[in-house]
Amino acid sequence: MKLKIAICGYGNLGHGVERALLQAPDAEPVAIFTRRQPSTLHALGNAPILPLSALLQWKDRVDVLVLCGGSAGDLPQQTPEFAAHFNTVDSFDRHANIPAHLQAVGQAASAAGHLSLISAGWDPGLFSVARLLFQAFLPNGNCTTLWGRGVSQGHSDAVRQIPGVIDARAYTVPLANAASAIAAPPTATHRRECFVVAQPGADRARIANEIRTLPGYFQGYDTAVIFITPEKMKRDHTGLAHGGQVLCAGTTGAEPSLHRHRFSLGLQADSNPELTGNILVAYTRAVHALYRKGTRGAITPLDVPPALLSPLSPEQQRHSFL
Amino acid sequence: MKLKIAICGYGNLGHGVERALLQAPDAEPVAIFTRRQPSTLHALGNAPILPLSALLQWKDRVDVLVLCGGSAGDLPQQTPEFAAHFNTVDSFDRHANIPAHLQAVGQAASAAGHLSLISAGWDPGLFSVARLLFQAFLPNGNCTTLWGRGVSQGHSDAVRQIPGVIDARAYTVPLANAASAIAAPPTATHRRECFVVAQPGADRARIANEIRTLPGYFQGYDTAVIFITPEKMKRDHTGLAHGGQVLCAGTTGAEPSLHRHRFSLGLQADSNPELTGNILVAYTRAVHALYRKGTRGAITPLDVPPALLSPLSPEQQRHSFL
Repeated sequence: MKLKIAICGYGNLGHGVERALLQAPDAEPVAIFTRRQPSTLHALGNAPILPLSALLQWKDRVDVLVLCGGSAGDLPQQTPEFAAHFNTVDSFDRHANIPAHLQAVGQAASAAGHLSLISAGWDPGLFSVARLLFQAFLPNGNCTTLWGRGVSQGHSDAVRQIPGVIDARAYTVPLANAASAIAAPPTATHRRECFVVAQPGADRARIANEIRTLPGYFQGYDTAVIFITPEKMKRDHTGLAHGGQVLCAGTTGAEPSLHRHRFSLGLQADSNPELTGNILVAYTRAVHALYRKGTRGAITPLDVPPALLSPLSPEQQRHSFL
Repeated sequence: MKLKIAICGYGNLGHGVERALLQAPDAEPVAIFTRRQPSTLHALGNAPILPLSALLQWKDRVDVLVLCGGSAGDLPQQTPEFAAHFNTVDSFDRHANIPAHLQAVGQAASAAGHLSLISAGWDPGLFSVARLLFQAFLPNGNCTTLWGRGVSQGHSDAVRQIPGVIDARAYTVPLANAASAIAAPPTATHRRECFVVAQPGADRARIANEIRTLPGYFQGYDTAVIFITPEKMKRDHTGLAHGGQVLCAGTTGAEPSLHRHRFSLGLQADSNPELTGNILVAYTRAVHALYRKGTRGAITPLDVPPALLSPLSPEQQRHSFL
């Protein structure tokens, strides 16, 4: 009996989740919900594509709902709303707002007797787990995280909101010496590149200035703004590769027997949404298992025993991984 | 109120655990047990060093007992025996024997109402968790683990058991092209180097042959055996550095949109026992928390929610790690 998974939002990430489910041995997509006109869309597998308004009719036919909307506009509203009706997994990634999101989702899920996991993905998600483990194992260590070179979808969205911008793609680029700058802030270890298609006649100097001073996104970074044609955007900037690393360095002992230690976790993904889709599917497995054990409310990847993410039996896991 | 931790076995690893406890904000060493004459040993902190025969007198004064003996001779007997009286953490690392050890420890701990975590450390341990996560997030991926260059203490011990050997140090060395040989067996990606101090007049050809054919240790590996003087052993081979990496490569999608993904976890440790000591202390924290929540029996690092390994509060963890 496979886990019945529904997908809410059918953009890049929704497609990535569907693709992951079609290959999972223990889970399957049972329905895909969209705000767009369903008849204009084609699923990769056999799950029906339905209007978002039909979602609640499926509440007794779904084990876990995966929310694939954006962290700026969609998830702060959708996850608490749907956590009242489903067990859910989302990839909420606005770091500063995670405590508020966790609280809102937790209240809705607890009241309804459901379980919701927020902030799955690779960062937050896998990288969060790595930062915690490295710091727990090297208590006096300093950790730093580097991102890129890769497309930041949240930053690209933010640029598209600026008047006069037709399309935009924002890249995060780690500086050449960043790996040695343990504990430096992200603004000191990264620069950003924005490729922008502007409306004809738009004031490019104003647009560039608005981008560079956008608080929480580009402010404080060395940001290059490059205006390009729609043709060039389509030709050169359709890839969705990303990656990054978590580095942690610390010591044990004391002089003259001071010992240095170093942990690193690295990721290179040719397709950020497809890799993130895989990760979200692994967390649906864990949410279902924890729900069956009686866990209710809202949790994060930091709360999940690794064993629950694998489709293998405990015996197979011990053989393959321990 | 700090966790009260006892240490059983006061060799390199026992010292590493004590050192880690002396820096922990939430745990402290309360007693150290040894088979040697306690009066010949000096603790780094204020915990008393006591004969192993006194251990059971401490059963009501200890939250978690950390077993720091060897995996070949000590732990298969000690962990089940002491799991009947204490919550325990050990670093049992004989991969093939983990299922049997887990079962023996689990029976003793369950019957007595205790909780025991086996196989903590970096491999098994952190690397086990990484292998599971990488494989869960890249289901069609191939993972490989590389070790070294570093001192393998288990292999060194095994060589010391061979008649005619006074002292030995065995190094594990990854081959130059190993990182590209994803999914190859360890014998194809590593070689071994044994530095041996032999008794005067011992048959060196026999010793070298016994080493190279030792099943489960050197058999199948390209193994160099180098005989050296006791002076050279002391001068060149006292370091206990080690390290390794877990690599996983896989794909999503299909041609012509096949996307490649790659995860890596790396460790470089100047002092293997001090780093392992840190890790064991983090797992004492998790064992105590899970015990208080009602978990009984035997578990491994695959069963531990990351959040329980950190001394930080959930709020601090979300701020620092998510």
